[in-house]
Amino acid sequence: MIILGIDPGLANTGYGIVQSNVSRNQLLHYGNIKTDSKTPSEMRLKAIYDKVINLIDEYDVEEVVLEDVFFSKQVKTAFILGEAKGIIKLAAANSGTPMATYTPLQVKTSVTGYGKAPKTQVQKMVQMLLKLKEIPQPDHAADALALTICHSRSHKLNKLREKFEELPA
Amino acid sequence: MIILGIDPGLANTGYGIVQSNVSRNQLLHYGNIKTDSKTPSEMRLKAIYDKVINLIDEYDVEEVVLEDVFFSKQVKTAFILGEAKGIIKLAAANSGTPMATYTPLQVKTSVTGYGKAPKTQVQKMVQMLLKLKEIPQPDHAADALALTICHSRSHKLNKLREKFEELPA
Repeated sequence: MIILGIDPGLANTGYGIVQSNVSRNQLLHYGNIKTDSKTPSEMRLKAIYDKVINLIDEYDVEEVVLEDVFFSKQVKTAFILGEAKGIIKLAAANSGTPMATYTPLQVKTSVTGYGKAPKTQVQKMVQMLLKLKEIPQPDHAADALALTICHSRSHKLNKLREKFEELPA
Repeated sequence: MIILGIDPGLANTGYGIVQSNVSRNQLLHYGNIKTDSKTPSEMRLKAIYDKVINLIDEYDVEEVVLEDVFFSKQVKTAFILGEAKGIIKLAAANSGTPMATYTPLQVKTSVTGYGKAPKTQVQKMVQMLLKLKEIPQPDHAADALALTICHSRSHKLNKLREKFEELPA
């Protein structure tokens, strides 16, 4: 299964693409979509949308994963982050790619085993689990990769549970 | 100039289309895009996006107008409203249609002459200015039409100012 994790933002949208096999997760690609604050917001959103559509197409992405965040110190930030999230969801829907979301608590628990793990520990685990020489930069990309690991594990656990439930009692 | 005003929301997206001529604004169409809360949010966003793209195409829309709201009592609502706003902006960008935004204060001032006018007064003015038999329903549609009137007036004032500035001193 090829999974695209996305950490959306109007200025920086981190992404990570991982191929999840039975035994391991292999990194295919990661990066960050930067947009210029001098560009009108609709053109920045279009740039992010176009790049995500391209990634889905180029890497034969089978699942898109987003973080289910509804927390923000400022309402204005929530509006702007919402705009970026909306177009990522649309990219998944328009390309016919199934989408999954996880809360930050789920991601941290899945990747580090501890729901209150600091950001740096999540990033270190991403590096280890994907056997990378260094922590992926920027943070947005590492966060996006953490999502792919969380999704891959959740998927495997679901498969296991299904198998277990099929066993004769 | 054909103007499409949109009052976005995940459950209800009001829209209004007006042809703005030198002397008057003529209503072409208005309505409301409803989506079902049982449908996954990415499919709801896709339904809104597809309908807006269709409207732009069918009515040869030349300008898309949105309200510039950054106020919400709840952060979660701001996130969700942001998602709907994001895909409207993307529809404008993807169809190559210029976009304008106005604050609620600008809309109220333009339509009623009074920045603190109650919602009902704005709707009554929309009915009068577009010579309609009744106030457009639902409220989302009336709000969308108020945006088109605001944009049309702003456009005319800009033209007038340009003319004035061209006059010899």
